[in-house]
Amino acid sequence: MKPMNWLDQIKWDADGLVPVIAQERASGDVVMFAWMNRAALARTQELGEAVYWSRSRAKLWHKGEESGHTQTVHEMRLDCDNDVLLLKITQNGHQPGIACHTGRHSCFYQRLEQGGAAPDWQAVEPVLKNPEQIYK
Amino acid sequence: MKPMNWLDQIKWDADGLVPVIAQERASGDVVMFAWMNRAALARTQELGEAVYWSRSRAKLWHKGEESGHTQTVHEMRLDCDNDVLLLKITQNGHQPGIACHTGRHSCFYQRLEQGGAAPDWQAVEPVLKNPEQIYK
Repeated sequence: MKPMNWLDQIKWDADGLVPVIAQERASGDVVMFAWMNRAALARTQELGEAVYWSRSRAKLWHKGEESGHTQTVHEMRLDCDNDVLLLKITQNGHQPGIACHTGRHSCFYQRLEQGGAAPDWQAVEPVLKNPEQIYK
Repeated sequence: MKPMNWLDQIKWDADGLVPVIAQERASGDVVMFAWMNRAALARTQELGEAVYWSRSRAKLWHKGEESGHTQTVHEMRLDCDNDVLLLKITQNGHQPGIACHTGRHSCFYQRLEQGGAAPDWQAVEPVLKNPEQIYK
């Protein structure tokens, strides 16, 4: 019996997508969250660079195609339910890496501050490069 | 003008949910991925422990309620699109922490092995405790 194709083992959701977490290998920082369809995952494996499915633009999105901030994929992990992927990546094109379209290192730059009268999301990470300089 | 409630700033999806990544603070390991609705996130903030929305059981799920493997939440982060959460947690009840229902440290224990004839998902992390002993 032929073993099941690695792409068929993924439990794609009703839209044919799987959530993807990108973690910087060197720092351990979670820098991004995105989605892949089957074609995006196959392309990621071929290229060794992250290729996502852009839900807003409804097309394959080779991360860094405009900004130069590509992601080298060192390792891919699948969770216990076969429906979430974790990538160990290097964020290329800038030191430190810029994963976020706002020019920040990580997309997760808003922290819930709980010291005040009510909890409050605050931006706590610096913009490393002006987005106008990134996407020109 | 009253500032917007922190829960209203989240862009809940069509099902009223937001994806949540749980990262162990001490190790940096991404140990789990789950979902929250508004009630789950509010309860997480009140308790200081992770409370998810179980999509399969359609109810609030205080992580560790059966296993004792609760998650102390040290920090909550929101991404640039306000539609993904990242929690910095301590995984309680076992040393090292067990986040996965299979008795493993992390849910992301399957690695894509690319050395063979075809890529192949392989379990590469040990079971730390027999699930039958966890859920008894």
